[in-house]
Amino acid sequence: MKSSLLEKTIARKDIYNGKVVKLHVDDIMLPDGTASKREVVDHCKGVCVLAVDSEDKIYLVEQYRYPVSSQILELPAGKVEEGEDMFECAVRELSEETGVSGSDYELLGSFYVSPGFTDEEIYMYFCRVDDKKDSHPDEGEFIYTQRYSAEEIFEMIEKGDIKDGKTIMAMYIASSRKLI
Amino acid sequence: MKSSLLEKTIARKDIYNGKVVKLHVDDIMLPDGTASKREVVDHCKGVCVLAVDSEDKIYLVEQYRYPVSSQILELPAGKVEEGEDMFECAVRELSEETGVSGSDYELLGSFYVSPGFTDEEIYMYFCRVDDKKDSHPDEGEFIYTQRYSAEEIFEMIEKGDIKDGKTIMAMYIASSRKLI
Repeated sequence: MKSSLLEKTIARKDIYNGKVVKLHVDDIMLPDGTASKREVVDHCKGVCVLAVDSEDKIYLVEQYRYPVSSQILELPAGKVEEGEDMFECAVRELSEETGVSGSDYELLGSFYVSPGFTDEEIYMYFCRVDDKKDSHPDEGEFIYTQRYSAEEIFEMIEKGDIKDGKTIMAMYIASSRKLI
Repeated sequence: MKSSLLEKTIARKDIYNGKVVKLHVDDIMLPDGTASKREVVDHCKGVCVLAVDSEDKIYLVEQYRYPVSSQILELPAGKVEEGEDMFECAVRELSEETGVSGSDYELLGSFYVSPGFTDEEIYMYFCRVDDKKDSHPDEGEFIYTQRYSAEEIFEMIEKGDIKDGKTIMAMYIASSRKLI
């Protein structure tokens, strides 16, 4: 039997407690008993939604992402609020960011964004857009809603014009399940 | 023409400067002129390698990931060192984590892991394993090297037993290009 690679916490030092992230640096013990440190960013869970309308167009939002200094295209997405359930969060974010509502929700899966330094996990949903009324995101969201075919999105992924992890992953999973 | 959604930096406050992450909190100006804050985690770029041997087996490594408190399966991967080029990093990490070397390297693409709070970008490579000598990771790496077929890996992804973002993404892209 393979032995455990567990890293034991010896002490925890809280560095920052923010609105989006918490940072702590822990003294740990490696499996062979030697001491080391781990820098950990705590982040709440997130969701994204791949919403397809009756014309087979997928909703993307364009927004400025300050950490990467660029205006990028992504699936509608957001952070799960305290006490909120993943599915509720998906419904809320889709509505807030695009103005549309969906049905036939299906969980595509979840993934750790970068388990070497953060616990963030993103849940990816698929849904079909109910109505095609002229939609508007909520006031105060600085985003442009756009609609593209799956082919157009895969072309943008191939060319490197779409670089957001959750968006790329949800597209491939939905395609492999023949949802798009 | 759509107007820019640029968020301008007004002031930057450095909170932590670690070995793996840097954290800063910036005062910014939103497109409508109102003030806001952004919590940003700077992280160096990363690579992962999908290495396939002559028996069509893919190398995975099992390791403890402290931020998610679990021992998980991932593609061999690591952080790009100062002055190191992505490809060199891929070759080095594959060797250090599995003991094997590869050829016919191909870039599968890159993605932002979570552009809402970090600049981390991961470059995904594919390669074919050159030799099948008995391989050992470097001393001091607490990992188990394992080999699985693509089918086995996709089954583990479907069941939620593999939850690492870069691993899932590289598998889907390599499959769509008929490399695996």
